[in-house]
Amino acid sequence: MPRDVSALELALNERPRHMTRTRWLYQELLLAILERRLPPGSRLPSTRDLANEYDISRGTIVTAFEQLQAEGYLISRVGSGTRVNERLPDPVRTQRLQKRAKKLPGSLSDGGDPRSARPFRAYEPAVSEFPIRTWARVAGRRLRSASTRLLAGGDPRGYPPLREAIAAYLGLSRGVRCSPDQVVIVTGTQQGLDLVARVTIKSGDAVWMEDPGYFGATRAFRNAAARIIPVPTDDAGLSIVTARRLCNRAKAVYLTPAHQFPLGMTMTLERRLAILAWAREVGAFVIEDDYDSEFRFEGLPVPAMQGLDRGGSVIYLGSFNKVMFPSLRVGYLVLPPELVESFLSFRLSVDLHASGVDQAVLCDFIVEGHFGRHIRRMRQLYSHRLGTLLDAGRKYFNGLLDLLPIRAGLCTAGLLKNGMTSRTAEAAASAHDIETMALSRFALKRSDVHGLLLGFASFDESEIRRGVVKLAGALEREAPKSHA
Amino acid sequence: MPRDVSALELALNERPRHMTRTRWLYQELLLAILERRLPPGSRLPSTRDLANEYDISRGTIVTAFEQLQAEGYLISRVGSGTRVNERLPDPVRTQRLQKRAKKLPGSLSDGGDPRSARPFRAYEPAVSEFPIRTWARVAGRRLRSASTRLLAGGDPRGYPPLREAIAAYLGLSRGVRCSPDQVVIVTGTQQGLDLVARVTIKSGDAVWMEDPGYFGATRAFRNAAARIIPVPTDDAGLSIVTARRLCNRAKAVYLTPAHQFPLGMTMTLERRLAILAWAREVGAFVIEDDYDSEFRFEGLPVPAMQGLDRGGSVIYLGSFNKVMFPSLRVGYLVLPPELVESFLSFRLSVDLHASGVDQAVLCDFIVEGHFGRHIRRMRQLYSHRLGTLLDAGRKYFNGLLDLLPIRAGLCTAGLLKNGMTSRTAEAAASAHDIETMALSRFALKRSDVHGLLLGFASFDESEIRRGVVKLAGALEREAPKSHA
Repeated sequence: MPRDVSALELALNERPRHMTRTRWLYQELLLAILERRLPPGSRLPSTRDLANEYDISRGTIVTAFEQLQAEGYLISRVGSGTRVNERLPDPVRTQRLQKRAKKLPGSLSDGGDPRSARPFRAYEPAVSEFPIRTWARVAGRRLRSASTRLLAGGDPRGYPPLREAIAAYLGLSRGVRCSPDQVVIVTGTQQGLDLVARVTIKSGDAVWMEDPGYFGATRAFRNAAARIIPVPTDDAGLSIVTARRLCNRAKAVYLTPAHQFPLGMTMTLERRLAILAWAREVGAFVIEDDYDSEFRFEGLPVPAMQGLDRGGSVIYLGSFNKVMFPSLRVGYLVLPPELVESFLSFRLSVDLHASGVDQAVLCDFIVEGHFGRHIRRMRQLYSHRLGTLLDAGRKYFNGLLDLLPIRAGLCTAGLLKNGMTSRTAEAAASAHDIETMALSRFALKRSDVHGLLLGFASFDESEIRRGVVKLAGALEREAPKSHA
Repeated sequence: MPRDVSALELALNERPRHMTRTRWLYQELLLAILERRLPPGSRLPSTRDLANEYDISRGTIVTAFEQLQAEGYLISRVGSGTRVNERLPDPVRTQRLQKRAKKLPGSLSDGGDPRSARPFRAYEPAVSEFPIRTWARVAGRRLRSASTRLLAGGDPRGYPPLREAIAAYLGLSRGVRCSPDQVVIVTGTQQGLDLVARVTIKSGDAVWMEDPGYFGATRAFRNAAARIIPVPTDDAGLSIVTARRLCNRAKAVYLTPAHQFPLGMTMTLERRLAILAWAREVGAFVIEDDYDSEFRFEGLPVPAMQGLDRGGSVIYLGSFNKVMFPSLRVGYLVLPPELVESFLSFRLSVDLHASGVDQAVLCDFIVEGHFGRHIRRMRQLYSHRLGTLLDAGRKYFNGLLDLLPIRAGLCTAGLLKNGMTSRTAEAAASAHDIETMALSRFALKRSDVHGLLLGFASFDESEIRRGVVKLAGALEREAPKSHA
């Protein structure tokens, strides 16, 4: 067993000004652990020893210990005191953190590998639950018998049987009314938005955007030189009254009516009809991003606006990248019939068409029923995970963060109740190895949105619970008025 | 054996004004065959009978017969006269042609299914020669063991091991000097061009384009609101002297230096160095589209301009879609280091990243040596096919079409010597079920380019030879001054 280390031997660096004692101690201890000055299995100096040596309160020390314990660096056992965990996180990550901790002693705010998901990364589906062996079997069979025509590809709309399968699926599950000829395969929602913006918008055209809303859409329309009109959302969705007052003659409106991104509410039928009527009146396009409608965990799914449209105004977007796995890169648009030809002609100058083989494999996967089974399994899993998040939130987030009661999707928003701004809370969470997104990142003009977006889909129950504890700790300890 | 049909019974429709007698007779006979008024195996009316009945010369009749024979509708055997082939082309295609022949009696000019390749479709690789079973095996193995990280994807540059493999391959085979961090995976050349244009060009920026040149590039730069400066090419490539006179302060130049598209010449070293020096002087980008450099059948391959560049001016583009199969959708850019960050940031708003799984499969395919083997096999095959085309051309195109002597790529240009314009020749070929592209389609300002682009890669020897005979017939019979 490694010998114990005294507080003096630890030789903690001096506390920079402006850094709270808790945070300083937490980082210094973390560094000592990562640099093996506190080797795995060793017992930490006693709180009394540390308090004397560094002139800090024992409360501060306990808080830092708890934080390191929540993160898995320390283990506390009755009768054995507090020890460094013998099984530290994997060495690559440790090394990286070590470097970072050395380079940036005042901040771990952008810590962590951008690709290893930590709670509560938004967007990320439960990739580890994807039936990859089934997919491999379907793909292998399809590839072995691939016709030269499939390999040659070339339909700018996409693989015809896949478009048929999508039209049928959307008709049944989303009330979308379309022929397969209106369906165009793209690499995902973002490419769909980029193409739609470039085909429908001329420089200076006004586009209504939900505020807060999806920044990927804002960027796509900005790239097309649109004039963005931020329109505040309320409980019923985008406020059309405000929108018409701000700029009635917009060329398009971007909407997430099923599950507003990022706030989660569903647009009311009344609001939907009013927007469709407006679009028809002024000749605008309604761009309906139905990004996670597959995952609604209670209540009836609300059919898509596309199915209510009688004016050929709605451009509908969906994607398989979240439902299946993100690196698949297959999404789709449903276009009004009048738009198809000019869209396809433009698309030829952009990227010709999507991958033919992947489309054929996906089509087989759908037609053979694997897709439906996978969605049903994931719906159950995600519902359960969201339940865990909401339960743990009720227990630990009291007075810190109010999770919205929406039961859908892969992520949910929480409104801050501790006086923090979104960005401060995001940074505090990040410093404690919790990944969230400040809701203010989605705001265009609004400054009244203080909250965090929390993804729950790709984390198991214990990760979610531990994450909630850590996040609650971060929000509590780092709140403006709290320092040791 | 079916009974013989008399000229009278055939009941040919009247000849529309402005249609040559040869063409009219050809189409009427084709229709009669397709509608089974001339059943398979039946003997045609004698030329004398037809000449008397319809008041046409026997030369006209012989020409029409020969054309139908070259296309496989008629068979002529010694002692048996001319009969309808008992094995007509497949029924679907026949039905389609039949409809078309009825609907458009004056024109078969856009005949044929856009997806069933006929000689001499350009661009099309020999998809039927692709080792799809090997690919299926590699893909199956990779998919079965796919990590959640691979499925989650997310590197906007692309799959790192593939970028390493590409950097190594380009270094060895093309003299490209780059680190894997400069390589960005895209869906193909067209997406690469679209992204490059949008990142490097501001509205109104001047871009030099080869004239004639690749229209996909012109479209990409036009979409980015560039001012296109057409620059004539000569035997050494784009004429930089003319270009500097037209507009010295261009923001970029688009080039196909290895094998100019569509004329095929290689840009001289002197010209390359002059263009690189200019680019450095005025701060312009050199966009080097190395679209088919894998297939050079004689002489040493000329290294890429990227490897000569000391100013960080060259953006290099390549693609696997032609080398492997078109529906793969994997291409790449090699960016100057300074451009990488802004490019990736922009790319996030366009389509995030390319398909991760396909990239991993391709990487395995390369690393295990299948890619190299496939290229070597195709190089031999294409070289042979081009040889067949050139041989047959020498025999049949005399005075009609001069095939350029370039031995590279998937297609080659021929210059018209029969007084036809490019478009007339393309239409004449199409009317005889031969697919070519008028070189004038690639011209921006020039009106002195009279020729056809002929693809040879995806057709076997007998298809190529039959195609040459048919095309020669079309160019001969449809030439301005020749009618019966």
